[in-house]
This record gives sequence, structure tokens and C-alpha cells, in this order.
Amino acid sequence: MSHPVSPLAPKHVPTLPPIAGIRLATAAAGIRYRGRTDVLFVSFDEGTEVAGVFTRSRCPSAAVDWCRANLGGGKARVLAVNSGNANAFTGLKGREATRLTAEIASRAAGCRPEEVFLASTGVIGEPLDATKFDGVLADCARRARPEGWLDAARAIMTTDTFPKVATRTVRLGDRDVTINGMAKGAGMIAPDMATMLSFVFTDAAIAAPVLQEMLAAGAARSFNCVTVDGDTSTSDTLLLFATGRAGGAPVETAQDPRLGSFREGLEALLRDLAQQVARDGEGARKFVTVEVGGAESDASAHRIAMSIANSPLVKTAIGGEDANWGRVVMAVGKAGEPADRDRLSIWFGPVRVAHEGARDPAYDEAEASAVMREEEVTVRVDLGLGAGRATVWTCDLTKAYIEINGDYRS
Amino acid sequence: MSHPVSPLAPKHVPTLPPIAGIRLATAAAGIRYRGRTDVLFVSFDEGTEVAGVFTRSRCPSAAVDWCRANLGGGKARVLAVNSGNANAFTGLKGREATRLTAEIASRAAGCRPEEVFLASTGVIGEPLDATKFDGVLADCARRARPEGWLDAARAIMTTDTFPKVATRTVRLGDRDVTINGMAKGAGMIAPDMATMLSFVFTDAAIAAPVLQEMLAAGAARSFNCVTVDGDTSTSDTLLLFATGRAGGAPVETAQDPRLGSFREGLEALLRDLAQQVARDGEGARKFVTVEVGGAESDASAHRIAMSIANSPLVKTAIGGEDANWGRVVMAVGKAGEPADRDRLSIWFGPVRVAHEGARDPAYDEAEASAVMREEEVTVRVDLGLGAGRATVWTCDLTKAYIEINGDYRS
Repeated sequence: MSHPVSPLAPKHVPTLPPIAGIRLATAAAGIRYRGRTDVLFVSFDEGTEVAGVFTRSRCPSAAVDWCRANLGGGKARVLAVNSGNANAFTGLKGREATRLTAEIASRAAGCRPEEVFLASTGVIGEPLDATKFDGVLADCARRARPEGWLDAARAIMTTDTFPKVATRTVRLGDRDVTINGMAKGAGMIAPDMATMLSFVFTDAAIAAPVLQEMLAAGAARSFNCVTVDGDTSTSDTLLLFATGRAGGAPVETAQDPRLGSFREGLEALLRDLAQQVARDGEGARKFVTVEVGGAESDASAHRIAMSIANSPLVKTAIGGEDANWGRVVMAVGKAGEPADRDRLSIWFGPVRVAHEGARDPAYDEAEASAVMREEEVTVRVDLGLGAGRATVWTCDLTKAYIEINGDYRS
Repeated sequence: MSHPVSPLAPKHVPTLPPIAGIRLATAAAGIRYRGRTDVLFVSFDEGTEVAGVFTRSRCPSAAVDWCRANLGGGKARVLAVNSGNANAFTGLKGREATRLTAEIASRAAGCRPEEVFLASTGVIGEPLDATKFDGVLADCARRARPEGWLDAARAIMTTDTFPKVATRTVRLGDRDVTINGMAKGAGMIAPDMATMLSFVFTDAAIAAPVLQEMLAAGAARSFNCVTVDGDTSTSDTLLLFATGRAGGAPVETAQDPRLGSFREGLEALLRDLAQQVARDGEGARKFVTVEVGGAESDASAHRIAMSIANSPLVKTAIGGEDANWGRVVMAVGKAGEPADRDRLSIWFGPVRVAHEGARDPAYDEAEASAVMREEEVTVRVDLGLGAGRATVWTCDLTKAYIEINGDYRS
């Protein structure tokens, strides 16, 4: 658990401002870890709207089931998150644990259990003892305050080596609104809808259905474009809470022209958090951007980009600072998408290494090697077929990944 | 290249008997390696029938293109294989290299270039200098003899740590026929049709279309059920040659009742070779069998089994001797196939660790840990939905895989 901070961690950590209508607290409930917080409690003023997207896993966690069921109401008063135990594949006991946690949280906040949103992250298959939240959440409710965002992001970490936060201030109609976000995740990252856990908060007055539309669109271009190991979690949860306390006429439709800047800001924030997840990829030493262009469609480009970003051979080559573009060819070839070997071009950074189905005649290994020694590497592929484009982010695959995951439970 | 022999290598290496109509020779052409053979030359008597299955990669090697084009003729006189260079993604030069190699081989054997089958394995993207075969193949043709099968298997190795051979003798009609086979492959192994390279030889008298039908069916249940790293090669090639020299009335249709034992023997041999590939998986310390039952269909079971066998988290857990069945749940969940969390059961070896969507109440961690310490580990999943079944083979993921692939080219 105590791995050194990823060398790819952001050099600057922003201070997140308070958001009207939101108070935070963290606690150490002793769920699994010692000497650190493992509970995050967030309370929302009445009238807070909520949207969410979740893992597409056929074996979702009990907390994901709970959130999905409550999302229809569109209202949230509490978010309670624990780390150390995913409460996934825990059967009937798992469902009872979410119900009990929500009851404890609702009593603490003075709301209905249906207004409580839950997330759990950590080991799969261990029963979660929800009685550990008894007293703890009530105490959190008393202590909760508008500050402490970085502490909040720390409380939900598992194998993460740094807390992941981001903030944006954008214009909505005639006023400024704030968007704060946090995320956790370092392994089992190939979100099929959202990442392990990410929570985004705003004081904007936007109705739940509009939030939902924007969140789904934003996730598709951020979290769903990140992979660490191609393993999709049982617990992926991305929730967006809007207190409306910034005031102004509420946004009721996704077509509202006032949304332009908010939509952009939200997407930038989601992308920021998603990239931080890749930067904290287990054992990561290099941050990798894969850009695919010239595909038959955007969807096809995305699948090819993911095939490259998930290839252990491509990722170990990048880890070894080896401009082994033959493995990129392999990953394009195996993606099952339209591709024509003889039209393919490949770049590492600015260096074109392959052109029209063969090594670039002007290719200089020394130049390519210099690119590979950088901390951030961009792999670019042009398929030469159409206008489809996609960008995804990942990290290299190193011995440290094996080390971290060879004895995660022990 | 000089990694120690996999601890999972077969304890007993069979001696392959001669096959009437087949002569072999190997040579050191200095394509990439020093101090070892890198060329295999096999000559066939006139009348030899041939069948083949190849990678489904959209970026196949030039040799795969060459074999595909010649397969229609159904006749083979020479198989020429080189290691050290895959002649893949080498553009027009690659096509010229195969043509020149085939010409040199056809002159050496006194046949037409269309009767020459080629395979190349090694680095992708480097031009293959076919002039290196000049003189070498003619010399091979002079030296070729019915023995030397293990040397042949050695000449086609790249990151393999042991040569892979197998033999079966089966009844066909009123006589015994022999099937010999060899394979190479250790990384970039997730065959979508066949593995990197595998060649199978028999003296049976069977027509090419019948061979083709049996080979495709056999590959689906052997090589296509093996994965090392989920990376599908550009060069996967499985060829079956039948000299007919055992005599007897030739088998002309796939429905011929005499084929029963041959079909079985061929499939057992293909499975043997395929499992040897997983046993030589780069960095492998454990041989892993994944059995999935109770799926909605066999195809669905296969996809779920592959999702488990390709999961880096499952594979690192097995490498770490950790009975982390939560990761098996994750891999079932992400496969995108019908699954019901609450009907799922999971076993490691004989130990049922999960039952009906939760940890097995009788589960004993010590028992499960003992299973994980074995050199061969079976992961079994029952989905509880239907009668679909599949078995696939893989290996664990260790630091040695990273080591081998972080500096393959250097």
C-alpha cells in the first residue's frame, strides 16, 4: 500500500474552493487500513440534483446497484464512500450492508435513505461490516465543513499514490459557477462507463436529466478513454452533484444555450481527472497518449487506440524505452477493425517511424530513442482510410505493476 | 534470448519418428542470431497435400500472404522457415523477399515456387534480406534427411526456452499412420487462428480439402484456446502436410468413417503443442487451465474464459500465489457476456471459493493457498445459466515477462 508517489503525479495540486451547499468530513473507521482515513462523508443541501454513470460489468458491486436504484429520484443529500472493501460479490450480505450504511447515513444527515449515494472500493468478495459506520457517520455529519477537499480525495485512495482533484470555474448564464472533482483509481482501470470512483460537485442550478446527459457525454470522452490494464472494475462509479446554490434560473433542458461553457468546463475537468488516473497507473513510469486518425469511424479509431493502449507488448516496450513500432502494427492488426497494412503510418512523438506499410526510409533510431526517454510519450497512428479519430491515455507496464498486484491482498 | 528453460517445460521430450516422404535440414544463415540455427528446410515428396490456417490480423506478414495465395493449389514440395525476422510490415520489399525466397527454395528442390510454403518469425518491421538464403537452401536440400525433428523445432525458436514437438501414431483404415508436429511461440500469443508458427506432418493419404476441414476444427479447440498476453501475432501460421506415403486408398471426404482415430490423434497433438506454448509463455512460472461451464453457449463460455485468462490482475495474482477470486469475478463481469452475479461459483483446483454470488461459507484460505502454490493451477467457473462450456490455457504474469519484453529488440 505504501508505494512511492508516481513520478507522473501532477507537479501542481490545485486548492479546491468551497461549493455552496456542500460540506465534507473524513474518518478512520478501521475497515481495512490502519493509520489512515477510509471514510468520506459529503452532505448536500436540500434540492441538490444528481446524475451518475456506472460500470457495465455484469458483476457490479452492491453499492453500484444501490446508486442505480436511487438515481431515478434525481435528488441527493449524502454521499458516503469507504475504501478498503469494495462490497462487491458479497451476495445478500452485501445488499444488507448497503441498506444498513444508507440507514446510518440518512439518520446522520436527517434525510431519506433514497437520498443517500454510496460507493465502496478495495478488495472484492470480503463482506463489508457496515456496523463500523455506526457513530462514525453521525460524527462526520457534525464535523462536516466546506473545506477539506484534498483530505476527501485521500480518504478514498487504495493503491493510488497521490490524491486526484481538479477544479474549474465557468460562466453559467449571468454568474460564475464552480466545478470540483476528485477521483481514485490506479489498477483495474479500463472503465466501461466511468472509472473506479469519481465524484464531481457544482453549485450550478442544473436539473438531474440535464446533468445526466452531460455526464454521460463527458465520460465517453474522458474516463472511457483511459486504461491502465484493460481490467474493468466491478465498482466504477462517476457521480455529479449540483446544489443549485449559485442561484439563477435553473437549467432545465440540455439544449439551454447557457450550458456551453459549463459543458466545456465539465469535460475538461473529467479529462483532467481521467488523465490523473492514468498518471497513477500501478507501476507507471511513463504517461502515454495514443492518437488514432484516418479510421473509418470514431468508434473504430477508439477500438484501435484501446487495442494499442492495452497491449502488454506495446506497454512493456514503452517501459523499456524501446521504439518498437512493430508491436504497434501488431496491436492495430489484432483490433479487428478495418485497417490496410499498406496505408498505415506510425509516429512516436514527432518522429515518423513507419509509412505506407513499411519502415519510414528517413527513420532515425536515435531520434526515436530520444522520444522514448521522455516521461510523456505520444504514439500516433494514421490508418489512411477515413476521417475517424480518437485519443486515449494509458501508462507503461513495468515490473512494479507485477509487484503491486502479485501480493495485493497479503 | 538466453533465458533459462521454463520450469513448466515437459519433463519428457518424445523422439519423433521419420515420416515417409519428408526430409529435414537446418542451417545458420545469420539472419539475426549468432551461434545458432535460424533456417528450417523441409522437403516433401511429390503428391504431398497441404492445409493451413493463419492469423486474422489485418496486418499479416508477407509470408502469411504468400502461403494464403498458394494454399488453393493444395500441393506442397517445400516448407522454408526462418527465425530472427518476421518479414511483417515490410511493404513491397517484404513481398519481394518472399518471392525471392520461394524462387531460391524452388530451385533447390526442383519444384515450382507455388509449391513452396514460407514462414518467418522474429522482429516486425525489419526488411528481410532474402539473398542470405542463396546457397543456404540448396545446401539444405542436399543435406536433408528423415531425422532431426528436434533440431528442426530448435531452428524456429525466438524467445522460446524449449523446442516444442509432439507425435502420435493412429489407425487410418487398415494401416498405422504417424503425425509429427512442432510449434514455436512464447509471447505475442493470443492466436486468432493458429499460434505463431506450428507445422504438422503425416504420411497419411488425405486430400487437402479434408485436411483443411480437420485442421480448422482442431485449431479452434487447441491453439485458439491458448493465450499468453492477449497479443495476436502478425505471423500466426499453422500448416499440415500429408505425404500419402503410408499408402491405402486416399481419404477424399471429411465424412470418411476411417477418419475417426486420425481426427482424434490430430486434435490431441495440436492440443499438446498448444499447451507447450502456454508452458513456455514469456516469464511463466505456472501453467493455468481456465474451465468455464454453465454459460449460455460454448462461444460465450470461450469469451469468458479468455477474459479470465487475459486479465493481468488474475495472472499477477496467480503469479503471487494469491487465491484472489475477486479478480476472477471482475474478469467474468467485464467479458460482456451473459452472467448473473448471484449464480456464479468459482473454484481454485478442488476448492470452491465462491458460491451463488458470495464467498463460499466453507471456504478455507489455507486450503486455497495450498492449491495456488502448485505449479499447475486450474481456475473453474460455473455461471449457472446453461450448458455452454470452454477450456483455455494460459500462464501467470511475472516480472520476467516485463524483463523479456522491455528490451526485446536491444
